Amino acid sequence: MSAIEDRLAGLGLTLPAPAAPPGVVLPFEPVRIHGGLAYVSGHGPLDGDRVLVTGSVGAEVSVEQSYEAARATALSMFASLERALGDLDRVTEWIKLLGFVKCAEGFNATPAAINGFSDLILELWGDAGRHSRSAIGAGELPFGMTVEVEAVVAVA
Amino acid sequence: MSAIEDRLAGLGLTLPAPAAPPGVVLPFEPVRIHGGLAYVSGHGPLDGDRVLVTGSVGAEVSVEQSYEAARATALSMFASLERALGDLDRVTEWIKLLGFVKCAEGFNATPAAINGFSDLILELWGDAGRHSRSAIGAGELPFGMTVEVEAVVAVA
Amino acid sequence: MSAIEDRLAGLGLTLPAPAAPPGVVLPFEPVRIHGGLAYVSGHGPLDGDRVLVTGSVGAEVSVEQSYEAARATALSMFASLERALGDLDRVTEWIKLLGFVKCAEGFNATPAAINGFSDLILELWGDAGRHSRSAIGAGELPFGMTVEVEAVVAVA
Repeated sequence: MSAIEDRLAGLGLTLPAPAAPPGVVLPFEPVRIHGGLAYVSGHGPLDGDRVLVTGSVGAEVSVEQSYEAARATALSMFASLERALGDLDRVTEWIKLLGFVKCAEGFNATPAAINGFSDLILELWGDAGRHSRSAIGAGELPFGMTVEVEAVVAVA
Repeated sequence: MSAIEDRLAGLGLTLPAPAAPPGVVLPFEPVRIHGGLAYVSGHGPLDGDRVLVTGSVGAEVSVEQSYEAARATALSMFASLERALGDLDRVTEWIKLLGFVKCAEGFNATPAAINGFSDLILELWGDAGRHSRSAIGAGELPFGMTVEVEAVVAVA
Repeated sequence: MSAIEDRLAGLGLTLPAPAAPPGVVLPFEPVRIHGGLAYVSGHGPLDGDRVLVTGSVGAEVSVEQSYEAARATALSMFASLERALGDLDRVTEWIKLLGFVKCAEGFNATPAAINGFSDLILELWGDAGRHSRSAIGAGELPFGMTVEVEAVVAVA
């Protein structure tokens, strides 16, 4: 078992089905690797094609729920990375996150949501998980998702 | 004639005037090349300085029109890349797109719009056009444009 | 004194306190360096933890004020880069900016705001400051900030 999957199991976490299930043809890739970097498509709180958290933070979604939505988004991205790389241990560094949060008018605590993603990668990767990021309030996100995050990671 | 321009002609497509016409001084570049990658500024459905599609998807703009707006955005970006590189064949890989769509309140089918960009690069570049991407709903876009897309591509 | 800091002083500008003051633990880094590039987190018009400009352009914030907000955002990013690199002269090229502007409904002159950032880096770095960029209208930004900008720069 890989070190990262071992830590995931230790936290009682399991990966969801990858966001783009086999057999569905999309005009883009969940993960694109070039020059030792993986550029990861925007992911949301998905289990396969099922959206786990929808709605606007500050209205029908609480700050705590938005944190959980970002954590679920991280798990969905891990599932895509595992399928693309074979083993999450091949992610040697998290470099950059760009996070979007669907906010109700006037609600702007976007960092509190995206922390759910950041905290989990620090927990799993330690210093190798230290990344820069932005947390932006989006007008709308695909399928009504509460959170969407894209990433750049270094791969071995 | 280059292979990509040949394929464009085969599809009956011609490039618009580049989005930043010669003689106009902007404080940024349409294309910035570093380390074998071209970082491409946000482009919209432009022919020179003329905006071809404005308005919000789900209100005055239909999903089909948003798809065409994204396709026109791709053509505008190709025009910038051709001016920067001399030949579109120098784009050896499409790596990453970040697309924004101006959405009416409650409309979130942003992937259906950005597919107009993704489908065209796959049609022209084949496997080399396979890219990761995000499709985000924006509050507002410059000049009221319906779509804006930025990109990272590998260049030879 | 470094060349860039000399030019800053010549313009009568001083750097604010870095946006993430020592002693505060955030789950992300203001600057992440990998492969000769620094990936810089989203910054706003901040002096330490004090937000200098809040509100929506086109409502309580004028276009001129949004330009100043973007200029203040650049200064905050310079402060982070100086702390991470020791000397701003180690920034050898500005490659890419992604700017977000909090807009009132129907206001879309986002480039006029982000020009405040772009103009300053061109003034300080000259040709090495030439960058690609996007200027997007955001639904909401953290802490009500009017502007947020992230960047990719080359470092020596």
